[in-house]
Amino acid sequence: MVQDPFKPAARVAGQRQDVWSIVNEAAAAYNQEHGAGSVVNMGQGFFGYNPPAFVLDAAREALGRVECNQYSPTTGRPRLKKALADAYSPFFGRPIDPDTEVTVTTGANEGMLSAFMAFLEPGDEVIVFEPFFDQYISNIEMPGGKVVYVPLHPPANGATHTTSAGDWTLHMPDLEQAITARTRMLVLNTPHNPIGKVFTRAELQAIGDLCVRHNIIILSDEVYDRLYYVPFTRAATLSPEIAALTLTVGSGGKNFYCTGWRVGWLVGPEPLIKYVSAAHTRICYSSVSPLQEATAVAFEQADAHGFWDASKREMKGKMDRFNEIWRELGLPYSEPEGGYFVLVNLAKVRLPADYAFPPHVASRPRDFQLSWFLIKELGIAAIPPTEFFTDANAHIVEDWLRFAVCKEDEVLEKAKERLRGLRKYIQ
Amino acid sequence: MVQDPFKPAARVAGQRQDVWSIVNEAAAAYNQEHGAGSVVNMGQGFFGYNPPAFVLDAAREALGRVECNQYSPTTGRPRLKKALADAYSPFFGRPIDPDTEVTVTTGANEGMLSAFMAFLEPGDEVIVFEPFFDQYISNIEMPGGKVVYVPLHPPANGATHTTSAGDWTLHMPDLEQAITARTRMLVLNTPHNPIGKVFTRAELQAIGDLCVRHNIIILSDEVYDRLYYVPFTRAATLSPEIAALTLTVGSGGKNFYCTGWRVGWLVGPEPLIKYVSAAHTRICYSSVSPLQEATAVAFEQADAHGFWDASKREMKGKMDRFNEIWRELGLPYSEPEGGYFVLVNLAKVRLPADYAFPPHVASRPRDFQLSWFLIKELGIAAIPPTEFFTDANAHIVEDWLRFAVCKEDEVLEKAKERLRGLRKYIQ
Ligand SMILES: Cc1ncc(COP(=O)(O)O)c(C=O)c1O
Ligand SMILES: Cc1ncc(COP(=O)(O)O)c(C=O)c1O
Repeated sequence: MVQDPFKPAARVAGQRQDVWSIVNEAAAAYNQEHGAGSVVNMGQGFFGYNPPAFVLDAAREALGRVECNQYSPTTGRPRLKKALADAYSPFFGRPIDPDTEVTVTTGANEGMLSAFMAFLEPGDEVIVFEPFFDQYISNIEMPGGKVVYVPLHPPANGATHTTSAGDWTLHMPDLEQAITARTRMLVLNTPHNPIGKVFTRAELQAIGDLCVRHNIIILSDEVYDRLYYVPFTRAATLSPEIAALTLTVGSGGKNFYCTGWRVGWLVGPEPLIKYVSAAHTRICYSSVSPLQEATAVAFEQADAHGFWDASKREMKGKMDRFNEIWRELGLPYSEPEGGYFVLVNLAKVRLPADYAFPPHVASRPRDFQLSWFLIKELGIAAIPPTEFFTDANAHIVEDWLRFAVCKEDEVLEKAKERLRGLRKYIQ
Repeated sequence: MVQDPFKPAARVAGQRQDVWSIVNEAAAAYNQEHGAGSVVNMGQGFFGYNPPAFVLDAAREALGRVECNQYSPTTGRPRLKKALADAYSPFFGRPIDPDTEVTVTTGANEGMLSAFMAFLEPGDEVIVFEPFFDQYISNIEMPGGKVVYVPLHPPANGATHTTSAGDWTLHMPDLEQAITARTRMLVLNTPHNPIGKVFTRAELQAIGDLCVRHNIIILSDEVYDRLYYVPFTRAATLSPEIAALTLTVGSGGKNFYCTGWRVGWLVGPEPLIKYVSAAHTRICYSSVSPLQEATAVAFEQADAHGFWDASKREMKGKMDRFNEIWRELGLPYSEPEGGYFVLVNLAKVRLPADYAFPPHVASRPRDFQLSWFLIKELGIAAIPPTEFFTDANAHIVEDWLRFAVCKEDEVLEKAKERLRGLRKYIQ
């Protein structure tokens, strides 16, 4: 007989409180005190505005159709798979087969989990660059995979000068040493969260060639693929050999400002995609039908609406608008090459020595305290990036915070106004 | 180095083609030949009509609100959790805490996977009654669980007489013998798919008491909880001891005719729910926001619209309307006590001896051939229920087919008309 029926499986047990709930709870407490909606939340990467009208209209229209409210095929609605194949074919420079080379998932997140579930046996290793998007870790560990970390090295002068996200660099010998007989997959993320780095073609070529030499599947997380401010290269375009091992990940939520719709996809060679589909079927069965249909229409009509260009231009405008405050305050930041996150260095900010942090914040690195302080004292939420590092390397970013700029311009202005309150703490 | 990078993990490898794709592909082929929409599909349990207007209106309205298009809290939108707590509290006869005793998932399917992921270590055993809803099996095997089958015994005269779904019975000694030191969970399903049985209070009490004696978590799949035609008991109401071990599963897709929305939930004691939430966060992160909001409104307004009563009455009407054909043809069926599936016995149907079945159908039990024949010759799709049995027990239902009656009345009439074509094959 089981002694304790409430004992959880190891895969869900005893993890410390995650960054999202710490920040969201602190933000909620601020709202409680100062009124609903009063905190400026630049923490989580959700959008502060709606998807474009042509996308919302498509969703409303889909809700009127019987078949759009019922189960979709497990691999995705044919219309969405066709729209995705049409969108990716020119990027990949070859026709993509919508039936066999595309599979639709419940957000990019469940798509990546499906890929890990498809290929990892317990003990298999997956290489992840540090910092990493935190969900990778639990996604790899669910099927019993082992994460092997390879650091990206920060710019040496990031605490004193505004640098470029491109100054975060991979040392190829680190990567070569991380490969073992058990290495099964490697996770790429470009444009990168949280750094904002867009990997160069040369960097990707070196990584890809190494993966080909060692038969390693490349899971290329490109959810910010429409938001790049320097030239952007997709791993799947580097060589036929690399393409044969590459699964490209996308997200309707990121592309069309609807993170709550949970429509994502993977595109790649049939021998890989078919097992991702099989895993997805066993995880979610199928994904949300009316919003798949709307995402199909979104892709079909995006070019006609000039959406992709406008989207990138607008986001770069928001980034530039917001970052003015750091120049004004004399705080260095890392200029993003893509995406909507900016890392800012707050080494110069002196937190009051006697400030009372709650134990679950006091026990974490300085960035958690900076985050807490900004919420409580200035009413502005940002994410402490040590959460995206292993404990051993957390110190690298303990003076930084990550801000998401995918918010209305007036919210960004309000944020800047509040951040001026930092001045008295800056040395 | 990995020798074959395309080798899938065991959990997704080499399974035979599932029943859904066999039936759906055959139905698609019929449509190809006879024109789009010409097959009458009574196979998969999706609805042939839309959710009620008040639910669709709520979804359209939610699409207009920024926060309803962005990430929801991982455990679900507070409004939906409150609506669910309000709906279940009177059933459970105690106030349910929306914050700690409810968690929202991506359909019931991913909700059940989350429960298995939360509590099963590799090698842990889960008791499942046979026949079973097929997704349970892969959901249990994903975290390394082992399925232990306990048969429900069919009525002895089911091939010659129309019987009641309630005549399928559990032998308690079978269940007692199935319990071992590794038994961690038991899956209940009432109203039952595919049988249509609603377990009696006495049956549930015996099962529940046994689980309490052995510290076994009860996962009570009640997705058809609003469609019962005899008294319906929920496991969580039997005793405080049973309630403490019971996770109740629900599905917005089944309740509101929108299987493609992928909104489900689990309700249960906090010590269990918290780990289900933790697993769900690692699987899907969060579930689809605008349709969670719409499902909240659906629950809030269902009583005022007299929806639950109308829904049950309508479905029973469909069931009765459709089953007239079996009396007319003299084919015995199993009268359902709940849900929208009916099992029909086609032992009297003689398939032409020289009929050419494709190999993937010829190699399966007779019900697959019956299903194939009905699609090809009559244009009507039904599910072969041996898929819901282990190979050893498949013979029990090899003469039966499962029909889903959740279709427009005129579709049911068309189905009956086509089924009259069976007459010449009936002995
Ligand atoms: C790098 C990265 N990958 C994947 C995701 C998850 O995307 P989705 O919301 O489509 O699951 C995110 C979301 O923040 C992300 O930043
Ligand atoms: C018994 C049973 N449980 C669970 C499900 C899955 O429900 P959902 O569509 O909410 O994932 C089904 C769907 O057919 C079912 O029949």
